[in-house]
Amino acid sequence: MAEGYGPWPMGNDEQLLSIIATANIACGFHAGDYQIMGGVIKKAQEQGVSVGAHPGFYDLHGFGRRQFTLSFDEVERLIAYQLGAAMGIAANEGGVISHVKPHGALNNMACQDDHLAAAIIRAIAAIDRSLIVLAPVLSALERQGRRAGLAVAGEVFADRAYLPDGQLVPRSSAGAMIDDPDDSLLHCLQMFEDGIIKTNDGSKLKIEAQSVCVHGDQPEAIKIARHVRKGLEAAGFELRTLPEMLA
Amino acid sequence: MAEGYGPWPMGNDEQLLSIIATANIACGFHAGDYQIMGGVIKKAQEQGVSVGAHPGFYDLHGFGRRQFTLSFDEVERLIAYQLGAAMGIAANEGGVISHVKPHGALNNMACQDDHLAAAIIRAIAAIDRSLIVLAPVLSALERQGRRAGLAVAGEVFADRAYLPDGQLVPRSSAGAMIDDPDDSLLHCLQMFEDGIIKTNDGSKLKIEAQSVCVHGDQPEAIKIARHVRKGLEAAGFELRTLPEMLA
Amino acid sequence: MAEGYGPWPMGNDEQLLSIIATANIACGFHAGDYQIMGGVIKKAQEQGVSVGAHPGFYDLHGFGRRQFTLSFDEVERLIAYQLGAAMGIAANEGGVISHVKPHGALNNMACQDDHLAAAIIRAIAAIDRSLIVLAPVLSALERQGRRAGLAVAGEVFADRAYLPDGQLVPRSSAGAMIDDPDDSLLHCLQMFEDGIIKTNDGSKLKIEAQSVCVHGDQPEAIKIARHVRKGLEAAGFELRTLPEMLA
Amino acid sequence: MAEGYGPWPMGNDEQLLSIIATANIACGFHAGDYQIMGGVIKKAQEQGVSVGAHPGFYDLHGFGRRQFTLSFDEVERLIAYQLGAAMGIAANEGGVISHVKPHGALNNMACQDDHLAAAIIRAIAAIDRSLIVLAPVLSALERQGRRAGLAVAGEVFADRAYLPDGQLVPRSSAGAMIDDPDDSLLHCLQMFEDGIIKTNDGSKLKIEAQSVCVHGDQPEAIKIARHVRKGLEAAGFELRTLPEMLA
Repeated sequence: MAEGYGPWPMGNDEQLLSIIATANIACGFHAGDYQIMGGVIKKAQEQGVSVGAHPGFYDLHGFGRRQFTLSFDEVERLIAYQLGAAMGIAANEGGVISHVKPHGALNNMACQDDHLAAAIIRAIAAIDRSLIVLAPVLSALERQGRRAGLAVAGEVFADRAYLPDGQLVPRSSAGAMIDDPDDSLLHCLQMFEDGIIKTNDGSKLKIEAQSVCVHGDQPEAIKIARHVRKGLEAAGFELRTLPEMLA
Repeated sequence: MAEGYGPWPMGNDEQLLSIIATANIACGFHAGDYQIMGGVIKKAQEQGVSVGAHPGFYDLHGFGRRQFTLSFDEVERLIAYQLGAAMGIAANEGGVISHVKPHGALNNMACQDDHLAAAIIRAIAAIDRSLIVLAPVLSALERQGRRAGLAVAGEVFADRAYLPDGQLVPRSSAGAMIDDPDDSLLHCLQMFEDGIIKTNDGSKLKIEAQSVCVHGDQPEAIKIARHVRKGLEAAGFELRTLPEMLA
Repeated sequence: MAEGYGPWPMGNDEQLLSIIATANIACGFHAGDYQIMGGVIKKAQEQGVSVGAHPGFYDLHGFGRRQFTLSFDEVERLIAYQLGAAMGIAANEGGVISHVKPHGALNNMACQDDHLAAAIIRAIAAIDRSLIVLAPVLSALERQGRRAGLAVAGEVFADRAYLPDGQLVPRSSAGAMIDDPDDSLLHCLQMFEDGIIKTNDGSKLKIEAQSVCVHGDQPEAIKIARHVRKGLEAAGFELRTLPEMLA
Repeated sequence: MAEGYGPWPMGNDEQLLSIIATANIACGFHAGDYQIMGGVIKKAQEQGVSVGAHPGFYDLHGFGRRQFTLSFDEVERLIAYQLGAAMGIAANEGGVISHVKPHGALNNMACQDDHLAAAIIRAIAAIDRSLIVLAPVLSALERQGRRAGLAVAGEVFADRAYLPDGQLVPRSSAGAMIDDPDDSLLHCLQMFEDGIIKTNDGSKLKIEAQSVCVHGDQPEAIKIARHVRKGLEAAGFELRTLPEMLA
């Protein structure tokens, strides 16, 4: 969320805030600016939605979707700057940042590269060891977060298909997105009820998931989010903020 | 300091760090980037130099020297973002931000406008009430900082002339800069020994000063800083970090 | 038009292109980027819509709506860069830039300041004396364009109210925008049929208008544009490109 | 040249202009801005130095040294925008752009990828077929320029070592730069007198060179440029602008 910039809005932050319990806030490097971040965090506070920092590569024009090769020092500072900025904005609104989830290409890379993931985790731990790491299940980021002794929430994607190795099908490939709300709900029920992901070749992976992600920049985001929430609640699940869940 | 950006250096951060006790760090909006900030803060830590955030307008191309008209909400978030970012970078280097000093046009405006100054102070207080505000003597920023109950260090300028109302002679006017190291030292001795500023019409203003500023982007910065330091020490003054001084 | 940036669209360029005969293309400084500009100019070529450069201040975050004080040298180069860039993009799509209309705060300032207007006109004339200047009627820009011997098309605004001195009511004032399509059409008929503007105090100004502007970034843009076009055609006017009109 | 940005200068444009006959001007995407470009082109005009556009990736923070993967449409527009912008700036100073040389990572990629090189050449040809392409000898860019029927000037590097396949030793490898002025001169004499490049494994490649490049961002640039020029003139070569040479 907060993925507009200056005069350009993106997504429907207000509507989404009425459906979700936890929001990821862009931190100004791939999208978002101090004013938009402040506005969204203020509304999240009012609605009891917990808020996380969503730091990405320093690449507004490419929306953080392009891969950059940075030194590990630079990665630590990339995270430290954006996480600190989000914490500053949150404090000014009387709130807190409770988790961190890297964005876009940075997240994709950190899911596959343990050294990169460890650099991200070092920066988070240096700033506040009580921050929760929101990391895709079966990823290097989940692994490094647990290794460093931080609280980690395993995340699955309601609207994305998985490869047999547990990685997401890349957005550039056919079948990457699950656009149909019913398919999306079924996908989620398997992941939360059965603790398994059914991958795009039909195989099954064992996981432990606490969080489900819907992409705010997709046209169907609101519809899918509502449908999945209703379906999971009907199955007996309860929507809670990350801090409540991991307390 | 840290006023380079990407491939472009500015000033001589390493040399300056060996002369001063307190450094103001650009926060990425008028200059500086996460990598440059991290490098300078790391060296400042090593040399026992205390570090402050130096937030400015969001204006890289104009180096924060152009005036923008922002709402007070926006000013709070402008400060909160940059201060938080600097705190994140400092934490990642094992250090802390101990003071805040606004930069350039933002600082100039905050010295003359009590409402703007109050918005800046609100953001600082919301983030950490133990932060020291570094504010020019006789300014609205000094006044609002004290009114809010924050620790304020009164700052004078070694290389700038003053107007009869206590404001600086604008850089665009003749006689704004004091380029001669001896003139600069004399100016400082009057301010620290006698507690007065001699303004550009010869009148005198009573002040209480704790800090002296030399502009890192001036060609003569190193020479003036060394000369002033030596002269003040010869007169019995001691160079201390802001936190030591206000403890 | 072309007022998106990177991942952020703005307005509905495709729909607008089916209604208008002449489009103003953002040039990358207040909005627009090379890819978006190229895409819109390509479609404009296909639909026989003539294209103009719409250069603004170098201020993406503020969308060119904030005033900057530049030297006249800098203003010339600001225009020359953006106009040249638009001509390069147009040439690559097999088209041409046929007119120039400054954007936002730059345009507002150039309408009131003859020196600034003259600097803009000098840059245009230096690049190509056959370019048409699209300038608000009764403005300094119109005056300086005619003085320099360039072709000038007088522009009126379908959706903006006028002050008694011929300037627009500022967007920040109440009554600046004419939101109702019928009011907008009536406004246009007076300007084109009778050659007069009825100002917001009821007085009348004599003008000579060739062009009518609807702001692409307003939610009602498409509706107003369609209604005004239909109404003017019903009154016997014909929609022609600027080059056809001034040939 | 013109590789500063806003408040940050880079290199010594004035000194270099007194030594060289042809300058490559940054176009605002990897460095340079409209004001810096205008100033350098104005001085180049005064000194009879011919001027070329030096377009790069849209990446100020990385100085155009990082590789981006763009569609060929996007590459055409990337070049068209920057080349047009440089032509606009030049026209405003009463001058012309006589050649084009891509910058940094874009140039490196275009030297090895014929499809990318062809996209760059298409944009140049669409804008003005009389522009000279300044391309490294033995590169894909040289090949595609000649294939499209444009005038191509073969460029060699005074301060860079070559690989056996005719490509430059990457800057990140040891031995990439030739820092010694005498080594640099010897390197140039072989290339211009004998028509051969001696590569870093001692083998020889046949070439046809018209232009020699010294990097303006290197500390020794002025010294090397002076030494090489003197040495080549002593050997009977004459310094001429690209347009004179290819006329």
